[in-house]
Amino acid sequence: MTDLTDRFVDSFGAVAAIGRTPSGYRRFSWTEADEKARAWFVGRARTLGMETRSDGNGNLYAWWGDPDAPRVVLTGSHLDTVVDGGAFDGALGIVSGFLAVERLQAEHERPGLPIGVVAFVDEEGARFGVPTVGSRLLTGALAPEQILGLTDRDGVRWSTAMRAAGADPTKLGPDPGLLDRVAGFVELHVEQGRGLVYEVQPVGIISGIWPHGRWRVDLRGSSDHAGAARLEDRRDPALPLASAVLAARETAADLGARATVGRIEMAPNTTNVVPERAACWLDARAPDDHALDQLVDKWLDAIEREAELAGIAVALTRESYTAGVSFDPDLSTRLGSALESLDITPTELPTAAGHDAGALAARVPAAMLHVRNVTGVSHSPNEDAALEDCVVGVRVLAGVLEDLACR
Amino acid sequence: MTDLTDRFVDSFGAVAAIGRTPSGYRRFSWTEADEKARAWFVGRARTLGMETRSDGNGNLYAWWGDPDAPRVVLTGSHLDTVVDGGAFDGALGIVSGFLAVERLQAEHERPGLPIGVVAFVDEEGARFGVPTVGSRLLTGALAPEQILGLTDRDGVRWSTAMRAAGADPTKLGPDPGLLDRVAGFVELHVEQGRGLVYEVQPVGIISGIWPHGRWRVDLRGSSDHAGAARLEDRRDPALPLASAVLAARETAADLGARATVGRIEMAPNTTNVVPERAACWLDARAPDDHALDQLVDKWLDAIEREAELAGIAVALTRESYTAGVSFDPDLSTRLGSALESLDITPTELPTAAGHDAGALAARVPAAMLHVRNVTGVSHSPNEDAALEDCVVGVRVLAGVLEDLACR
Repeated sequence: MTDLTDRFVDSFGAVAAIGRTPSGYRRFSWTEADEKARAWFVGRARTLGMETRSDGNGNLYAWWGDPDAPRVVLTGSHLDTVVDGGAFDGALGIVSGFLAVERLQAEHERPGLPIGVVAFVDEEGARFGVPTVGSRLLTGALAPEQILGLTDRDGVRWSTAMRAAGADPTKLGPDPGLLDRVAGFVELHVEQGRGLVYEVQPVGIISGIWPHGRWRVDLRGSSDHAGAARLEDRRDPALPLASAVLAARETAADLGARATVGRIEMAPNTTNVVPERAACWLDARAPDDHALDQLVDKWLDAIEREAELAGIAVALTRESYTAGVSFDPDLSTRLGSALESLDITPTELPTAAGHDAGALAARVPAAMLHVRNVTGVSHSPNEDAALEDCVVGVRVLAGVLEDLACR
Repeated sequence: MTDLTDRFVDSFGAVAAIGRTPSGYRRFSWTEADEKARAWFVGRARTLGMETRSDGNGNLYAWWGDPDAPRVVLTGSHLDTVVDGGAFDGALGIVSGFLAVERLQAEHERPGLPIGVVAFVDEEGARFGVPTVGSRLLTGALAPEQILGLTDRDGVRWSTAMRAAGADPTKLGPDPGLLDRVAGFVELHVEQGRGLVYEVQPVGIISGIWPHGRWRVDLRGSSDHAGAARLEDRRDPALPLASAVLAARETAADLGARATVGRIEMAPNTTNVVPERAACWLDARAPDDHALDQLVDKWLDAIEREAELAGIAVALTRESYTAGVSFDPDLSTRLGSALESLDITPTELPTAAGHDAGALAARVPAAMLHVRNVTGVSHSPNEDAALEDCVVGVRVLAGVLEDLACR
């Protein structure tokens, strides 16, 4: 146990040194920090005698056993982060996957089914704006042409960034040959809320993922002098913008959903000028599609009411939508057994956060484990998990992988 | 009259070709566009046989008559613009000043008092955030050390920008030797509202300028995952930010004042992250200081109420304050006579916009003329003045300059 704790500290510490900035982690796809993280992955696989392969999308796999066997088991997560993210989100699942394999290698000369640890490309979408890119390219939920032309804030295209990192963007696409052989995929992830804190459990099971999406509202008014223009003559798009922020919160609270306006842009964005244009982005998540539709409809109604008073034109664009996911019941039962064998009561909770496991659930039996997050804060350097809880996570993951692959 | 109209079209057209972009004018201090505008000024002076001088602040003067005479008369305005500004704001006053001198030169071999046309540096403050820099350095209302360290959005300092444009920032400072000799300063400016449209007058007199200022509010919360964080666990600074936008408008309407939130910044400003920080800037103007104080107090109260509910820390900074101005009564009476001699009923209106004439009023007799703005819109490419009204403006300005300098 102490040995596993030490090994966790070493291994997690190596990843946690990559892409760290004073304001949080910045490991974005196809950047130097990303390259360092991928090099760490390859080195870690080598020390465990695992063969590393990359698919056409840049997803990295480290294999214990024959990668081409007719049935395989997968675990893993992602190495990229949001802007100013935390140390655990994504990385914890990959570090734990390798440690679980290491633990199984100590007890089994070879696995019954080969086990692959996978690092999916661009889960957060921090650089190009679209999340779970690697896993959704793998399943075919995203077509390569939806990705290749995406640009980052400096105008660099996804394809250019991928090529600059030494990978070949002409090879993007699904890999049914792999997916058809996957007996199960288990993703371990730090919790992104306080559910396990309230349940007083170190590790829990995710029952499913809420449907969610991103909507953009563009508001066009008329720029004017902040001193000279009479209030009644103005067409100020900042007024419906403010309503959008407040209505997102109120509507979500009414519906038991979640909604956030985390991004705002105004033009010309100058103190003494009534703005000409404003835009904001809604991140919305709800227990089911009906509630999600209601949320967006009511939100737009509130904006349009204020926009009409202010003489502002409103345009709504749905930028992304991800259907809800129910994870595989058999796999979740096996996770429950692994928890019980460590005397932990299995706790199932839904999540409103998107995950690679959600993307894979469309094609393979998939399930997720959560490790308790002490602060409950996520997508922030303040996310935190206790060392003991992380070690429990590794043990549960090793337990379910043993169940799936070594019996 | 037709001749004056043609000359106005030529002269105004030359300035209107400088710094024009598809989204409006961008002539910022010490940029290439600014340099072109200054070169136009020097060339225009030369064709009228006027001597050009620059003071230590970079304000440009073109003199008809001896610049060192014991009494002089000044007219002028500024050549810089806001971000995506219009063609008339500032430029109209300088173009009209030269045309007025040209008109007087046709009738007088030399003026009784020398007439200077002045282009003040950095009136809008679009690049460095502080308005009426040139005129307030001239009067001493701004100290050089308040300006030299200002930085633009790229981190370039005022001093560096000035030096790069070939001027010497060690020479900044007041010029009492000039100001003590100024018998009167008249600024002609396009109106920045619809006052003269409602009065059905081509040109009017500004009685005074409301006190005004800029305040910044910083809101600090805690970044979090937009999907996973429970609404009740969030500390989202976008909520009090939205209240700030709405409260500015409501409070100003209640008090018969003007308030605008034209600039907003959020961090990290990412769709799927609850923001960590938000900031906004209030531009506030009111008929008197008491009303202005009330406006800012009530605005801050509204923000603090929402911030307390949301667990957000609030910090208020006053970035600038400009006292109200009453223009010189004798000079305004002379403006009235010049209007009457063209059969125009003198109309006096206050303004909520800051002007170089407001800065000069602290030290010399100063007055202002407004030319009707068809749209009433200002700080926007949509500001507009009819050619006939502009020509009337030149004639009124020539009339008052003749009254002051040629009798």
